[in-house]
Amino acid sequence: MKYLIACLLTMLALANANAAPIKVAFVLSEGANVMDIAGPWEVFQDTMLDDSAGSMPFVLYTVAASRTPLRTSGSGAPGLLITPDYSFDDAPTPDIVVVGAQSGGLELREWLKRQHAAQKTMLSICTGAFELAHAGLLNGKPATTHHDYAGTFHKTYPDVRLVREVRFVQADAHTYTAGGLTSGIDLALHIVAEHFGEPQAQRTADFMEYRRAGGKVKQ
Amino acid sequence: MKYLIACLLTMLALANANAAPIKVAFVLSEGANVMDIAGPWEVFQDTMLDDSAGSMPFVLYTVAASRTPLRTSGSGAPGLLITPDYSFDDAPTPDIVVVGAQSGGLELREWLKRQHAAQKTMLSICTGAFELAHAGLLNGKPATTHHDYAGTFHKTYPDVRLVREVRFVQADAHTYTAGGLTSGIDLALHIVAEHFGEPQAQRTADFMEYRRAGGKVKQ
Repeated sequence: MKYLIACLLTMLALANANAAPIKVAFVLSEGANVMDIAGPWEVFQDTMLDDSAGSMPFVLYTVAASRTPLRTSGSGAPGLLITPDYSFDDAPTPDIVVVGAQSGGLELREWLKRQHAAQKTMLSICTGAFELAHAGLLNGKPATTHHDYAGTFHKTYPDVRLVREVRFVQADAHTYTAGGLTSGIDLALHIVAEHFGEPQAQRTADFMEYRRAGGKVKQ
Repeated sequence: MKYLIACLLTMLALANANAAPIKVAFVLSEGANVMDIAGPWEVFQDTMLDDSAGSMPFVLYTVAASRTPLRTSGSGAPGLLITPDYSFDDAPTPDIVVVGAQSGGLELREWLKRQHAAQKTMLSICTGAFELAHAGLLNGKPATTHHDYAGTFHKTYPDVRLVREVRFVQADAHTYTAGGLTSGIDLALHIVAEHFGEPQAQRTADFMEYRRAGGKVKQ
């Protein structure tokens, strides 16, 4: 029986290794927060499977309303100047969408609605939850956001079931919201675990020299 | 006596608040690692002093060999496309220099040498320590790097006193090296503590929803 399970696990690992790349789209608009991007970016970038090829299963790219360069968050100066890889009109169809804190916009929300309707995995980090809520994707569902903005979130979106003091919470079958800033690292590691198992997520965290926090909540 | 101390602390805080902004230059070259940038970037960006004005003491900008757009680290696609704010020739004189993992280059190392000679605070994150070591800035001094690259570092730079399994280590009066990736967050928080005290560093970590790791080593 143990041998059978070991064989099945090996087959599963091989199937994962040979699977099509998992496309992760990072949604950008003016003022996009740097850590909200970097947390999941680094987790997906550093996930190398424990197979003979050392497969890197994730493909990462940025998407915005246009390819016009935009500024991220910063301090005392405008922020990092990033040119998006794609516009919402020409971006490859993603498997995972990452939405950090940012200024947002109508085109962004309409694109999020389309990706949600197509049942793409969607992660918000920090006040990125406001974009999902504004797009109506969290009504009646549990969600979290940065602790300093939780009160405003609750007042603005009373139909969303606000969950406080967690690293992240799952809203529906394919939508997740994380708390502030570094909590996006834990959410992305959770997504890695969902795809490739908990030991892989821990390997990625170890490579990043990151001490994981608990806080997984399914409601 | 308590009143006197309270007054002195208030005066110190006011002096800090009114001080000139602390300029932080993030050094970029092709393949610059995203988390190595984002960790210190977010720490300095999120440091708001506990004064009446809520002063933001740090000014953040990017510097590279030229203002030609370059790609950061990524997975399955080229990486974030960033246009540096300044070239090494025209960058404002920094107070702090952040050097993450990247492809480096002669111009970068020459600029690092000049900043080190001018006694600017210098932080390396991850394999950014290789750039400092290559520039000869760590000879005879303690330093650390990403755990997977520690062996190569030791072989390549035997004159540097490699320290393993720490978040960061201070090399000389104004030079520090951090371990891999997220350890840059802890080093940057330490720099905030050096400037504005430990409670301020903890406030910044709390805002980032980040659980700090220990590991300060002065040798």
